[in-house]
Amino acid sequence: MIIMESEGNEMARLTSIGFKDFQNLPLEDKRPYLENWNLPGTPYHTLIAQQFDRALLERLAALANRIRFINKSREGALYLKGLLAHKRAMLYFSQPSSRTFLSHLAACQILGLTTGSVRDAATSSEFKGESKEDSIRTFSSYFDMIIMRTPEKGLAEQMAWELSNSDRPIPIINAGSGKDQHPTQALLDVYTLLRSFETKGGLKNRTVTFCGDLLRGRTVRSLSYLLTNFENVRQVFVAPKELQVPEDVLDILKAKGVSYALSDNLREATSLSDAVYMTRIQDEWDKDKGESARIDTSKFKFGAEELKLLPKDGVIMHPLPRRDEIATCCDHDPRAMYWRQMRNGMWIRAALIAATFGYEREILGCGY
Amino acid sequence: MIIMESEGNEMARLTSIGFKDFQNLPLEDKRPYLENWNLPGTPYHTLIAQQFDRALLERLAALANRIRFINKSREGALYLKGLLAHKRAMLYFSQPSSRTFLSHLAACQILGLTTGSVRDAATSSEFKGESKEDSIRTFSSYFDMIIMRTPEKGLAEQMAWELSNSDRPIPIINAGSGKDQHPTQALLDVYTLLRSFETKGGLKNRTVTFCGDLLRGRTVRSLSYLLTNFENVRQVFVAPKELQVPEDVLDILKAKGVSYALSDNLREATSLSDAVYMTRIQDEWDKDKGESARIDTSKFKFGAEELKLLPKDGVIMHPLPRRDEIATCCDHDPRAMYWRQMRNGMWIRAALIAATFGYEREILGCGY
Amino acid sequence: MIIMESEGNEMARLTSIGFKDFQNLPLEDKRPYLENWNLPGTPYHTLIAQQFDRALLERLAALANRIRFINKSREGALYLKGLLAHKRAMLYFSQPSSRTFLSHLAACQILGLTTGSVRDAATSSEFKGESKEDSIRTFSSYFDMIIMRTPEKGLAEQMAWELSNSDRPIPIINAGSGKDQHPTQALLDVYTLLRSFETKGGLKNRTVTFCGDLLRGRTVRSLSYLLTNFENVRQVFVAPKELQVPEDVLDILKAKGVSYALSDNLREATSLSDAVYMTRIQDEWDKDKGESARIDTSKFKFGAEELKLLPKDGVIMHPLPRRDEIATCCDHDPRAMYWRQMRNGMWIRAALIAATFGYEREILGCGY
Repeated sequence: MIIMESEGNEMARLTSIGFKDFQNLPLEDKRPYLENWNLPGTPYHTLIAQQFDRALLERLAALANRIRFINKSREGALYLKGLLAHKRAMLYFSQPSSRTFLSHLAACQILGLTTGSVRDAATSSEFKGESKEDSIRTFSSYFDMIIMRTPEKGLAEQMAWELSNSDRPIPIINAGSGKDQHPTQALLDVYTLLRSFETKGGLKNRTVTFCGDLLRGRTVRSLSYLLTNFENVRQVFVAPKELQVPEDVLDILKAKGVSYALSDNLREATSLSDAVYMTRIQDEWDKDKGESARIDTSKFKFGAEELKLLPKDGVIMHPLPRRDEIATCCDHDPRAMYWRQMRNGMWIRAALIAATFGYEREILGCGY
Repeated sequence: MIIMESEGNEMARLTSIGFKDFQNLPLEDKRPYLENWNLPGTPYHTLIAQQFDRALLERLAALANRIRFINKSREGALYLKGLLAHKRAMLYFSQPSSRTFLSHLAACQILGLTTGSVRDAATSSEFKGESKEDSIRTFSSYFDMIIMRTPEKGLAEQMAWELSNSDRPIPIINAGSGKDQHPTQALLDVYTLLRSFETKGGLKNRTVTFCGDLLRGRTVRSLSYLLTNFENVRQVFVAPKELQVPEDVLDILKAKGVSYALSDNLREATSLSDAVYMTRIQDEWDKDKGESARIDTSKFKFGAEELKLLPKDGVIMHPLPRRDEIATCCDHDPRAMYWRQMRNGMWIRAALIAATFGYEREILGCGY
Repeated sequence: MIIMESEGNEMARLTSIGFKDFQNLPLEDKRPYLENWNLPGTPYHTLIAQQFDRALLERLAALANRIRFINKSREGALYLKGLLAHKRAMLYFSQPSSRTFLSHLAACQILGLTTGSVRDAATSSEFKGESKEDSIRTFSSYFDMIIMRTPEKGLAEQMAWELSNSDRPIPIINAGSGKDQHPTQALLDVYTLLRSFETKGGLKNRTVTFCGDLLRGRTVRSLSYLLTNFENVRQVFVAPKELQVPEDVLDILKAKGVSYALSDNLREATSLSDAVYMTRIQDEWDKDKGESARIDTSKFKFGAEELKLLPKDGVIMHPLPRRDEIATCCDHDPRAMYWRQMRNGMWIRAALIAATFGYEREILGCGY
């Protein structure tokens, strides 16, 4: 018999607070309002990286591992595909992103959810005549979950509050909102690190180096924050001075007593790192044209030389797409973790969706 | 055992008449030709609102209620999802409409149909090199049902005739053809009214007020017609004189002996109505730019004042999307039926599709 | 119990050759490298028409026949839909083609594969920032098969090699690459011919006439080649001299000792043919505008007169879409095979996908 922990009466605690009050809370204080009222510690809406504490990160990683294992056999895959076959998800991508789209789609398909989607400008312009609240309300009429990506900061948060306070509340997963938050990317990054060191003593006491455009990428910001959940993880930030990590990220590290360093020497950092997280130059955020092009980024690329310096248990990561930050000659090295990182995104998203619908215990306890 | 009433030998009586003769029939006389030869009274093709008599409307409403109820439990939802899992539907939307698209998609998914779609200009232009007959014939090669929306008046009718007279006949559902017909919208409107008064003595002897652009909306035209199927339903038309309901709609009411009134006073009409059906100004049909903007529509909006005047058992409806015809302050009032109306569209479309494939009796008799 | 012949350890022999060496092989010599290592004679990647020898063509035709038969009953259709329900396919159509897209989609759906897709310029431009290798690698992270259509010659081949040599090899089906290859179209053409003469003594000793633009269509090129697999099939090429079949096609026929003729007389050829394969003028390949329009193609159309001359067991084929190469008055003639040819595409693609995943024996031996 399938165990459903909260089926049919899920709700978020968002019903107990006004929107303005919620909006003005510090990020970490928002966490309890986004939980499932009936499953304390489990997200109902997934909106911000700050929702994930270490306990939740490790639970979701364990669930993702279990789903990945079950899915290896035909029988296991069919069992998973039956679990949420009675649910339907809407993928509303008003900002295109095929990678994030396909990965969420695959996660839904693994669990048997059927899906609808809006993913191009032409179709989504359809909705321009009406308010965003009405559009979201439309999706909630036909679907059981909304996975949304939007260029608009704060929109996912507002929609989650609106839905929770409507008479048809359904969960929202934020698949990227502006420069703001991309919590499932942060989740897959942590999951990849946890997997990489799973049989090698775990994540504690590791050194993680971030390299590239550390100023404008939300990925680095979120991952840096989440790593503070783990014991004694040292962070190194390697970037041209114009693109170094912003002060507010460092302030959090200081406040939490996390050891960190700034550098412009990727080779040196690589030789001392357990993980090197490369990022591309985010020139789409340039204020004037060519701003990024004028910065010398030549020393911030990972190639054959860096590969030699990376410890043998180290890993190279990248949120992808890449340009030339990582040379293709690294692709077949066993330490190149970026392809697996991408596939991890599918597993951890499947775990998140399953947990959101209250199927964590069922999956962990199943016979497959 | 699953009961299939006509599986495998469904066909429409359209095979027994030439296209020109069929095309020239009065709308009400077309009904028998669109029925399933093997299931008298059940539509094979769904093309026009005039196909639905009261008996069929009430049967489909009962089926939609049943589907809605069965779908509440996981087991019920999985039962429904198995029913038409062997069928595939094509959603051919050469005129985009995400709401109608998603609602038909969800209806298919509830019953387990898998779907293909063409829904944007870029993809459908693919087919421009060939005749529409050939395109439709393509879809019928790969799918078991076509749900089509087109800006072209009469096209769905022609395609239904062509398919019925091909060696691979499959049913068509018209999801909107030009200014012409949108029969499933009319169906969901009637279903919403039937549900609203289900436990309150039914639809007979009610007053329904239409307000807004009554000249150019096919919704009002179809619903006004369908309401004549019910005993003593009085109709009130509230609009600026430039947008009042056209004479031919009133001629039908006169011919059927239905009581009606024209008005420009929404508040007065509201206080005397059981249902107020608001519509938006259809300025996309303006002949010269700004035509609609020159009309004073300020008195034809439903807000806090109107809400106070609406009887406590009354309902407010709207086909959506709305602009400012209904103030958002009405949204949480229990009489605001427009969200539920939208979701009703999904249930009644599922009922229509199930009936079309001959599964009405199976669903009504199942143990869930 | 479901029999899986090679589940989980499928791989192509492409791992045993470098890319340049593979690329430079004569087409027929590529065949063994594309086979499934564990299922000799069965394709892993499907890239070129030259992969199909007569044994494989007849096996796939038999499997398609079986799938078509099983799918006739509800129970059979549900059995098929369970077979590959644990697999997911990516339809990557960077060159739009709704017919080929829908037909592959339907084939996947018949076997229960869930699908993701990229099929319009707007969405696929997403991937332009990154290399094609990285994009394909993205798809292989989330899916179990890639069905790809691209305007770029040789790309499918390169991607197949890359994937086979990655640590997540998955099969590729080429759904059309430039002017180059469209192997599943050739497959459906042969399947249609095999079906047409199945109960009439088979394909041997037949005359097949090709008519239209024989210079620029890859369809004719591939089908002409595949017909050389069958005993004593005579080929006639009817075209304006500017669009006659190129020398290299004839060279293959000469080398294989196949009887052929060139002609500009469609009526005469029709009266002597078992199959007439019409094609449209491919003016999208015109070098200067109007090049095709200056050619007199009026004698190369199939109409009522030609129909009279076609032997009573003959068939008319067309890869579609058609313009005016075949008059619509032929559409209801029992010898008009082009609609069925289109639907055959769905069945033979389902057969190919099932065989690729190692389910041929299971389907042939099942009780339906």
